[in-house]
Amino acid sequence: MRYVVIMAGGSGTRLWPLSRQGRPKQLLELFEGRSLLRLAYERLIGLVDPGHILVCTGRAYADDVAAQLPELPSGNILGEPEGRDSLNAVAWSAAAVAARDPDAVVAMVTADQVITPVDEFQRSLTTAFEVAERRPMALVTLGVVPTSPHTGYGYLHRGEGLADFPGVHRVAEFKEKPARAVAEEYLATGEYWWNAGMFVWRAATLLGQLDQLLPHTAATVRTIVAEPGRLDELFPTLTKISVDYAVMEPASTGSTGAEVVGVPLAIDWRDVGGFVSLAELLADDGGNSVQGRTVSLDSSGCVIINAVGDDHVVGTIGLSDHLVVATPTATLVAPLADSERVKELVALVKESEGARFA
Amino acid sequence: MRYVVIMAGGSGTRLWPLSRQGRPKQLLELFEGRSLLRLAYERLIGLVDPGHILVCTGRAYADDVAAQLPELPSGNILGEPEGRDSLNAVAWSAAAVAARDPDAVVAMVTADQVITPVDEFQRSLTTAFEVAERRPMALVTLGVVPTSPHTGYGYLHRGEGLADFPGVHRVAEFKEKPARAVAEEYLATGEYWWNAGMFVWRAATLLGQLDQLLPHTAATVRTIVAEPGRLDELFPTLTKISVDYAVMEPASTGSTGAEVVGVPLAIDWRDVGGFVSLAELLADDGGNSVQGRTVSLDSSGCVIINAVGDDHVVGTIGLSDHLVVATPTATLVAPLADSERVKELVALVKESEGARFA
Repeated sequence: MRYVVIMAGGSGTRLWPLSRQGRPKQLLELFEGRSLLRLAYERLIGLVDPGHILVCTGRAYADDVAAQLPELPSGNILGEPEGRDSLNAVAWSAAAVAARDPDAVVAMVTADQVITPVDEFQRSLTTAFEVAERRPMALVTLGVVPTSPHTGYGYLHRGEGLADFPGVHRVAEFKEKPARAVAEEYLATGEYWWNAGMFVWRAATLLGQLDQLLPHTAATVRTIVAEPGRLDELFPTLTKISVDYAVMEPASTGSTGAEVVGVPLAIDWRDVGGFVSLAELLADDGGNSVQGRTVSLDSSGCVIINAVGDDHVVGTIGLSDHLVVATPTATLVAPLADSERVKELVALVKESEGARFA
Repeated sequence: MRYVVIMAGGSGTRLWPLSRQGRPKQLLELFEGRSLLRLAYERLIGLVDPGHILVCTGRAYADDVAAQLPELPSGNILGEPEGRDSLNAVAWSAAAVAARDPDAVVAMVTADQVITPVDEFQRSLTTAFEVAERRPMALVTLGVVPTSPHTGYGYLHRGEGLADFPGVHRVAEFKEKPARAVAEEYLATGEYWWNAGMFVWRAATLLGQLDQLLPHTAATVRTIVAEPGRLDELFPTLTKISVDYAVMEPASTGSTGAEVVGVPLAIDWRDVGGFVSLAELLADDGGNSVQGRTVSLDSSGCVIINAVGDDHVVGTIGLSDHLVVATPTATLVAPLADSERVKELVALVKESEGARFA
């Protein structure tokens, strides 16, 4: 049977003070009252049954996840005691699904993006399921067809095409986030995709790869599933590593008996990684990207977010290319060019004012 | 007997959102829990009895004034039904004091400044009282000895000195706010003072001037004092005009039988007219003028005011020469150079979001 695991970990400090330690960006109801998590769930409607959708998240967020996805059985929320990078979310999920159905095919999807059109996403995911079902040793990764020489994503270099799936290719190489000139070259060749960090595989195949590559991890996640009471004891012993480094890159060399296959995803991919990317998704008001009650005088190019509520107004005068975020417990102001430095500020706030503000 | 009237009108939109329609700047407890009004009151301690101190303010603020000045008898708060410029505060106060004591000498003082040292202020005010007591037709105005070619104040041009009061001069001319070059010239001559908008005169003398210059006003304020129930009916009929235009300038020509006399005030005069001037009175934190819980990363030259409270933090990154003000109901962000345009923004806020935010 087909399963989908939504990966919704992450502390989300890059959107502070909207996102907080207790409320990461995936849970912020920024999109007409819906969160990125909710959007990720709704992208799956019609594709798999809610009983076959799991969410892997931080334990602290499990209640909020359950509240936002009331359709899910409560046993489908995997709450990590601590964040230990993407491999362990992937490994634990695979073991949990395999215990239910040894033949399960699992899609691992992210909840960091706004994706349109949803139809196209569903078509690609269906193709990826079909590839994994027909090719038992396939580790399928979704590759976003790039629309710009983006330097914020890793890239997948396409290899030979698969005869039975038009447009689907082996992945020849994983590339780190490139310099601008390199990204432009990638784009020009037409042979590269953005690495979406979304995967489809048989749970058993993934676990078999881990048996070879990281046997402690493979054994530990099976134990956690068999003896849930030992989660807190065992989870922290897992090696902190990304799924690309741990599995996909080694497997793409062909040395593990698996094949890495890329399925193209020709969608508009809006990664909500920071305020600049969030801005593209907000309403435009006289040249500023705004949310909530705001009033601007001679201001332009700004991102102005009023998350305090309707009894508050954010006013700006003569402001250009700045970020203003107001929440009940914190206000942030910075030139947009410095908005990527939010993590630094959060560290400073935590140090000088206490963890409750971080 | 000596009386003092503290003028504390004004809607204070220039410090929005700190100041609001319901809470003008004079009532903001910005200075170690004390407001400008409270500071103005405390400057008078030892000079006149609290029973001889009146406050002329907007009626809407009367309760707050009473709360901040519990020493005052409640009958000493004159609540204007609406703001009708400085002359009418002056005229009504003079009539009210004259009704208590026809020989009263009244000082009209402002509550818009932080003044140091207070001793020096008291010495000048005492001299001004003595001048008005000894010279029955004197309209005494206090002139701040200028320390810079400030273009934000009107200036007083000194005339001949008074033989019996060293340093005290007739005022030859009232000058509007000058251009920079003109202000520099004024400063160089040593013959000009800043117009402090503070006055001392016999109540009867001021009323006599009004009988000549604005007889409707003179008659009306006497009626209001005699029949307080008619305040709401009569006050709005008073001509809206400043005391300088209505009385001081005409009288300085000598045509009204009065003499305009200037008493120097050699004090540090910090007018809290806007955020730039408020900034000088705030704490310095790494090159920014701050109040409340704030955390700044690579920011300088900013004015950052957190008036939300201790459960809120205002964070800035890479911000230079900007104003950030956070209150529970509004946030304001602007380059400091635009901070004088707050009134425009408030008008816009009022129009688009409603009067409750203004």
